[in-house]
Amino acid sequence: MEKELIEDYRFGRQQLAEMCGYACAVAVTKVFPVAALSRKQRTVLVVCGPEQNGAIGLVCARHLRVFEYEPTIFYPKRSSDSLSKDFTTQCEKMDIPFLSYLPTEVQLINDAYSLVIDAILGPGAEPGEAKEPCTSILATLKLVKIPIVSLDIPSGWDVEMGSEDGISPEVLVSLAAPKKCAGRFSGKYHFVAGRFVPDDVQKKFHLNLPGYPGTECVVAL
Amino acid sequence: MEKELIEDYRFGRQQLAEMCGYACAVAVTKVFPVAALSRKQRTVLVVCGPEQNGAIGLVCARHLRVFEYEPTIFYPKRSSDSLSKDFTTQCEKMDIPFLSYLPTEVQLINDAYSLVIDAILGPGAEPGEAKEPCTSILATLKLVKIPIVSLDIPSGWDVEMGSEDGISPEVLVSLAAPKKCAGRFSGKYHFVAGRFVPDDVQKKFHLNLPGYPGTECVVAL
Repeated sequence: MEKELIEDYRFGRQQLAEMCGYACAVAVTKVFPVAALSRKQRTVLVVCGPEQNGAIGLVCARHLRVFEYEPTIFYPKRSSDSLSKDFTTQCEKMDIPFLSYLPTEVQLINDAYSLVIDAILGPGAEPGEAKEPCTSILATLKLVKIPIVSLDIPSGWDVEMGSEDGISPEVLVSLAAPKKCAGRFSGKYHFVAGRFVPDDVQKKFHLNLPGYPGTECVVAL
Repeated sequence: MEKELIEDYRFGRQQLAEMCGYACAVAVTKVFPVAALSRKQRTVLVVCGPEQNGAIGLVCARHLRVFEYEPTIFYPKRSSDSLSKDFTTQCEKMDIPFLSYLPTEVQLINDAYSLVIDAILGPGAEPGEAKEPCTSILATLKLVKIPIVSLDIPSGWDVEMGSEDGISPEVLVSLAAPKKCAGRFSGKYHFVAGRFVPDDVQKKFHLNLPGYPGTECVVAL
């Protein structure tokens, strides 16, 4: 489907990442409305992987900042792609802090942040082949007590089969459409952020998604 | 300011056009909520010029389609820029009709559409140098009775001085920040779509804009 959007519809990768990252940030506001949070409670740790999922995480972090959250980014393996580089610069210039390492002491993460955005691995990653530093990060995230919001799929899950012992996000934001593993998601909130997918493509891939109300870019399933 | 966003903050032109076009479509929904309109009343004529303003108009048209309006595009002088070409393909593939000419009989426009989006000329255009087909289009738009929504500046206006005898839009959507000529705008609704402008840039250029509520990308002045 992504191929169709990019090759036939001529959507740009920058354009798609911008729309997806924006929608993820909007989904966060639905579950954790900023007005109900103290300044301390607005702290969000955004963990970005080296591929497309991480790029969307960077966009999400920028919009969270605009929505008056306090994001901090951990982006240990930076992509050399100009798209990701530009998104990184936007975050840096907007004074979003970047962590140089992730505490292995889980309590430090629980204390410092109110939630974690998991933008580590997307549906294109082979779970068996997850490499460092991703495997260590996932081992840490399995232990945190604060809610995890996963972008597209929970990192480390197989796109179809899910995972027996992977991370358990509280919120899942499916991008474009839910992947098969979303059927095994047992968290509280599942959103789809795919309003940008043209009707004909939705029909062709039998998405049967609910309608998006008003000007909303995400819808809860 | 655009230079600063692009060169220092590394915002992409595609990314900025996407955010601006989306925000313009959202502004339209505020003044003309789709739920209050019959299908016939949802018809919108989007007139796109050859430059950046026209590219944003194409994005706006696409989002209006997603928001269940019935846009029709008139884009007589197509840009050879890949950005505009891709936005054009997105609209074409989503079955948005393109007019091959604009009726000179104004009544036909009044009857066929409920509003006009003016994405013809932006602040970079020299009003004295407006060429065909823009001058004819503007002459026609001066006579239409349906509301006009202008993107960034009313086309044909001088960016500072405005215009004595130019078009009179009912709605103005300033992009990033109001241009000087917005002080001469006498229509009913003036929005700013510039939430993406980082705080430091807003301060540097003394924008003093009102806060955007919630996740809103536009704010009424």
